[in-house]
Amino acid sequence: MKTTRIVKNILSNYESDNPGVKGNLARMLMEGKLGGTGKMIILPVDQGFEHGPARSFAPNPAAYDPHYHYQMAIDAGLNAYAAPLGMLEAGADTFAGQIPTILKMNSANSLMSGTAGKDQAVTASVNDALRIGASAIGFTIYPGSDCALDMIEEIRELREEAASVGIATVLWSYPRGEGISKEGETAIDVAAYAAQIAALVGAHIIKIKLSTDHLMLPEAKKVYEEQEITIAEQADRVRHCMQAAFNGRRIVVFSGGAKKGENSVYDDARAIRDGGGNGSIIGRNTFQRSREDALAMLQQLVDIYKGKA
Amino acid sequence: MKTTRIVKNILSNYESDNPGVKGNLARMLMEGKLGGTGKMIILPVDQGFEHGPARSFAPNPAAYDPHYHYQMAIDAGLNAYAAPLGMLEAGADTFAGQIPTILKMNSANSLMSGTAGKDQAVTASVNDALRIGASAIGFTIYPGSDCALDMIEEIRELREEAASVGIATVLWSYPRGEGISKEGETAIDVAAYAAQIAALVGAHIIKIKLSTDHLMLPEAKKVYEEQEITIAEQADRVRHCMQAAFNGRRIVVFSGGAKKGENSVYDDARAIRDGGGNGSIIGRNTFQRSREDALAMLQQLVDIYKGKA
Amino acid sequence: MKTTRIVKNILSNYESDNPGVKGNLARMLMEGKLGGTGKMIILPVDQGFEHGPARSFAPNPAAYDPHYHYQMAIDAGLNAYAAPLGMLEAGADTFAGQIPTILKMNSANSLMSGTAGKDQAVTASVNDALRIGASAIGFTIYPGSDCALDMIEEIRELREEAASVGIATVLWSYPRGEGISKEGETAIDVAAYAAQIAALVGAHIIKIKLSTDHLMLPEAKKVYEEQEITIAEQADRVRHCMQAAFNGRRIVVFSGGAKKGENSVYDDARAIRDGGGNGSIIGRNTFQRSREDALAMLQQLVDIYKGKA
Amino acid sequence: MKTTRIVKNILSNYESDNPGVKGNLARMLMEGKLGGTGKMIILPVDQGFEHGPARSFAPNPAAYDPHYHYQMAIDAGLNAYAAPLGMLEAGADTFAGQIPTILKMNSANSLMSGTAGKDQAVTASVNDALRIGASAIGFTIYPGSDCALDMIEEIRELREEAASVGIATVLWSYPRGEGISKEGETAIDVAAYAAQIAALVGAHIIKIKLSTDHLMLPEAKKVYEEQEITIAEQADRVRHCMQAAFNGRRIVVFSGGAKKGENSVYDDARAIRDGGGNGSIIGRNTFQRSREDALAMLQQLVDIYKGKA
Amino acid sequence: MKTTRIVKNILSNYESDNPGVKGNLARMLMEGKLGGTGKMIILPVDQGFEHGPARSFAPNPAAYDPHYHYQMAIDAGLNAYAAPLGMLEAGADTFAGQIPTILKMNSANSLMSGTAGKDQAVTASVNDALRIGASAIGFTIYPGSDCALDMIEEIRELREEAASVGIATVLWSYPRGEGISKEGETAIDVAAYAAQIAALVGAHIIKIKLSTDHLMLPEAKKVYEEQEITIAEQADRVRHCMQAAFNGRRIVVFSGGAKKGENSVYDDARAIRDGGGNGSIIGRNTFQRSREDALAMLQQLVDIYKGKA
Repeated sequence: MKTTRIVKNILSNYESDNPGVKGNLARMLMEGKLGGTGKMIILPVDQGFEHGPARSFAPNPAAYDPHYHYQMAIDAGLNAYAAPLGMLEAGADTFAGQIPTILKMNSANSLMSGTAGKDQAVTASVNDALRIGASAIGFTIYPGSDCALDMIEEIRELREEAASVGIATVLWSYPRGEGISKEGETAIDVAAYAAQIAALVGAHIIKIKLSTDHLMLPEAKKVYEEQEITIAEQADRVRHCMQAAFNGRRIVVFSGGAKKGENSVYDDARAIRDGGGNGSIIGRNTFQRSREDALAMLQQLVDIYKGKA
Repeated sequence: MKTTRIVKNILSNYESDNPGVKGNLARMLMEGKLGGTGKMIILPVDQGFEHGPARSFAPNPAAYDPHYHYQMAIDAGLNAYAAPLGMLEAGADTFAGQIPTILKMNSANSLMSGTAGKDQAVTASVNDALRIGASAIGFTIYPGSDCALDMIEEIRELREEAASVGIATVLWSYPRGEGISKEGETAIDVAAYAAQIAALVGAHIIKIKLSTDHLMLPEAKKVYEEQEITIAEQADRVRHCMQAAFNGRRIVVFSGGAKKGENSVYDDARAIRDGGGNGSIIGRNTFQRSREDALAMLQQLVDIYKGKA
Repeated sequence: MKTTRIVKNILSNYESDNPGVKGNLARMLMEGKLGGTGKMIILPVDQGFEHGPARSFAPNPAAYDPHYHYQMAIDAGLNAYAAPLGMLEAGADTFAGQIPTILKMNSANSLMSGTAGKDQAVTASVNDALRIGASAIGFTIYPGSDCALDMIEEIRELREEAASVGIATVLWSYPRGEGISKEGETAIDVAAYAAQIAALVGAHIIKIKLSTDHLMLPEAKKVYEEQEITIAEQADRVRHCMQAAFNGRRIVVFSGGAKKGENSVYDDARAIRDGGGNGSIIGRNTFQRSREDALAMLQQLVDIYKGKA
Repeated sequence: MKTTRIVKNILSNYESDNPGVKGNLARMLMEGKLGGTGKMIILPVDQGFEHGPARSFAPNPAAYDPHYHYQMAIDAGLNAYAAPLGMLEAGADTFAGQIPTILKMNSANSLMSGTAGKDQAVTASVNDALRIGASAIGFTIYPGSDCALDMIEEIRELREEAASVGIATVLWSYPRGEGISKEGETAIDVAAYAAQIAALVGAHIIKIKLSTDHLMLPEAKKVYEEQEITIAEQADRVRHCMQAAFNGRRIVVFSGGAKKGENSVYDDARAIRDGGGNGSIIGRNTFQRSREDALAMLQQLVDIYKGKA
Repeated sequence: MKTTRIVKNILSNYESDNPGVKGNLARMLMEGKLGGTGKMIILPVDQGFEHGPARSFAPNPAAYDPHYHYQMAIDAGLNAYAAPLGMLEAGADTFAGQIPTILKMNSANSLMSGTAGKDQAVTASVNDALRIGASAIGFTIYPGSDCALDMIEEIRELREEAASVGIATVLWSYPRGEGISKEGETAIDVAAYAAQIAALVGAHIIKIKLSTDHLMLPEAKKVYEEQEITIAEQADRVRHCMQAAFNGRRIVVFSGGAKKGENSVYDDARAIRDGGGNGSIIGRNTFQRSREDALAMLQQLVDIYKGKA
């Protein structure tokens, strides 16, 4: 596998990481139709855990089968496929070597009242990641939740263990919980803060949500206004989040949320591209469409990231 | 032990598991009168812990003796016998090699008020399972309870340890606790969700309850209605739960609950069979009847699963 | 040490235990005046921890000295002496090999308000037991307390560690706490349940309290009445508790509680004997009497268990 | 170092301890002006942690310097010097071998509201004790606090580890917290109970407070009155506490509390001596006086313990 | 590297530390423009974690880039650069060997409501410190918070592990939380207490805030007034804090807080110098100014510490 200059430049920012971790980052960056461009599209399928099976897969029942998602990620030429342990295990042998995988190591569910939106359960180990040949572990933290310090300490430990065996860490940094208003969950000051925290705790790839121009934290709001930070357009906000990710020294991918119209998905991707983001992580908008529609949409996203659409 | 084509097909779905785990799954699938059919009947006796000894065994006092249950499972030609540590230890030598055993590793009790229906105590270790020659560990999680995340993290660890020494994991996935209404405990959306969670955390055999056509989660209810998912008959609901278990890639057995009339037990089994489920796990309906009645009933269940009744 | 047929029969019920544990059970069963009869009298002295020194020993100040109790157990020809670490250490060398000891590994105290009657502190290790030559560890659980699951998990771990080095486990199973009414602490349904739980978690010797004919748990009460379980006499209740201890496959000793009249103590012992129990564990009724009175009473108890009184 | 007959007798009570621990007990018992008498004076300086630096040392600013206390303990001919890690480390090399040290391993502080008087932080390890050449570890428990069970479990572990490398354990047993009234903290029944608990968990040297004739626990009060236990004089109460310390089989030293008049300090020491206690642990009354005054007072205490004053 | 007499004297106070730790202390004391003077200026950049990226870096956007701070510390001739893991990793290779680094191992954030100002998350390990070549670990404790005992126990463990591999410990001792009023956070009695606690738990370098003449603790206030402790001027208060740091046997650096006017920064430094403090730790006042202004200010601070300004 020969890496492109763009990918080499990205890897050079991970200056304290060992060749194992860099190799796995390269594997994901060089995979699929966007391989070598420095852009990424990742397919995440953990909604069966988070929202339940019917809400996730009933609109497209073929998606109940774990093999479906592996095949989709491969056929669409994506960079990586992320899912919880059981989901990955059910196809890890059949699809071994055909697509880089990210073992999502913690998950929440919609059945709990007490800790809903506050904490997740760790459901896999770094040994599991090694055993099924994953390139990275995935982990969610909820900055702003009362459990955030515990979650950060968990990923600290898992990240160190994973890196010690050459596995990269993808951090879902999703502000949520007691300290965060509903609107604040996607506020730009909060999103940038989430990116910063992920970078500081050592994430190799940062996953945050696209944001709005809302400002939640009063102390931060003051600064945004005084310094006249541009946050009007989505591309501006992506650009600001890249600043918060060590001025672009870390890979950041953005998630789109619930299923929505195609054009809206494409507009998001263009904003990510124009703001200097590294790509999309796109789940429900993929597997809740028919296979044909999903493949068409993903091809269009590839074209957008290549600057052709 | 030569496995049948059906069993080989089932085993092929466990594509990330080592030969030790597969061997123990095969051992249970090939045992007894249903051996080789891909169907299973398991005898579980943990009600002494959950409900107390008199409520469990007074209707048939011979059942106070741990040897009684081993002998019943053997004589009825069942696939496996599941019980807590003390119960298994008391007959493990006498019946060594005569019936696969499942070491039930956690239990609740009816004496506690504070955590009733929320949590269980771990009462055995994987070393205990090895020491008494068990084929699998059994573990209960209560999705929906405030303790669910902790329980999931416990089984994550135990499952990994057990699999590393070739022992399979049977997961009792019983929604219960703060997030679940009484009716919701057996709602079909909740049951399917319970099967999905069990599959995602890596259970080899999933044990859930038979469900009703109630829908508890508002967000899920919407999807069931929009997508017109068929849930009117028990067989439909079993079929839907098999979808939630990775489209049938995981073994699912269904439990029947408190002692009830024979015909009702048989109807349950037919629904499980017709919906594509893998079998029954049947405790009180066995040992709270006389030995003769229990043997007759179990023979009838075998016949049902063989399609003869 | 040659074991009797009775003791051999008892040992044969411990079919999953290693020769080390069986050897220590044999050591206790063959010791003293009841050696070889299958009956036991054990002297427990942990009341200094539970109730304080003056309440325990002021009525007989010689008992402040740890040596006093060792000597009493030896001179009275008892089967074993149980006490917390400091107490045993203070005489372990002087009396080495003269009487089997049980290291009581957890204790509560009467100074605490917050967790009174709910939890105990672990005060010794299995290594301590080995170091001072104890035959068994002793541990209290409070079924019904909000801490019960934690206590069960503690003894699970200690029991496994102890058994792995050939040390037996004596479980004080004392229902208490949030889920248990004052009357319920000695209710027969609760006592039998306590014996069952102790057996299920793997206790080699079970210590429960003598019970009353009260029935605390509504669901259980129904069964006792429907099944017409005989619980009128203390001997009946002892017999029922032996059923709950795997139909007599586990050794059960009964405790008598606070100091009381001699005849009452003797009546208790006769009921234990007639109900098929294995013996008495008797503390305050021993050491709060003068040495002479205590020795006379213990001789009488020996005679009762031998069927001579 | 040749030990006296008195010291040999004391050591013989520690019959389960290894030569390493006995050696360190001997080292403290044979040190200084009271060496060989079986009596001890220990200098503890942890008040900087408990009350803050100015409240502790401003009355005699030379005492801000850790070297000051080492020198004081040496010059006054005391048996040992006890302090937290940082304090001991700051002079451990300069004064190596000149005075036995006790590493105080946990401490509270006066800044906290939430857990004030309930818990302490562990601030050192047994390895630290070995590394700086300490003869013993010191540890505080608060019997009666809601944290007492946890504190007891902490010292259980540390005591075992320390003893395994030949280091003795000094236990500060200070009743305090939710279960204890202000007057109860120094009540005689509570003080004796504190000594008993310390002995039972395996302390080699027990540190308790001098007590009053107040009786806090109603159940205990009844016994003290019925048994007519003599508690009128301080010497009586010391004697009673020695009973509670395994009838004098454990070394008990008494603390004096806040700075007070010289005569009061001397009266305390005479009571300790006359009641059979082993000595004083005396901090603020030492270092809050000028060096000259402190040396004079300590000489007088030595004379009292030698029966000359 | 040849150390000066002043540095040798400072090192001699660390009499229980191994050559590895002393070597790293020497490395920091000998670095930069103040090298060899016994004075230090440290650049800490953890505000992105504590306050968020925009509040920290928007006033000088170049500071979003981790390399900026390394270069600043080097160009200004400072003694060390302190930051969280991700921040240090992003430049650790480029600047290897050019400036001693302090790995800040725990951090709080402004998104949390529940534990705000009470606790921090551990975000790195001692292995991380070794891996990136750090000279010291940095850790914050909040004396006065309900989490203070836990934080102290965390640093106890990390400090021991770090020292065992020759890495020094810098303790941010910041009184805060339930027990501390807003004014109390910078009260002189509280600041001196914070220095004392840091010294007692074994910090090699203590970081506290400059204080006011407010006295928070009533018991302490009494002593300050009775003993007529001089606290009117900042230099007096620095001097008092040095007393509390083992009479100057430990290195203490003072932090200045939020960005403020230059003269105010200089006055602080003169007070630290005149009171015998070891230097400044200065973050926002550096990186929130332009590079030119920051370099000029830091040169002036160097001159002040050298007694030239």
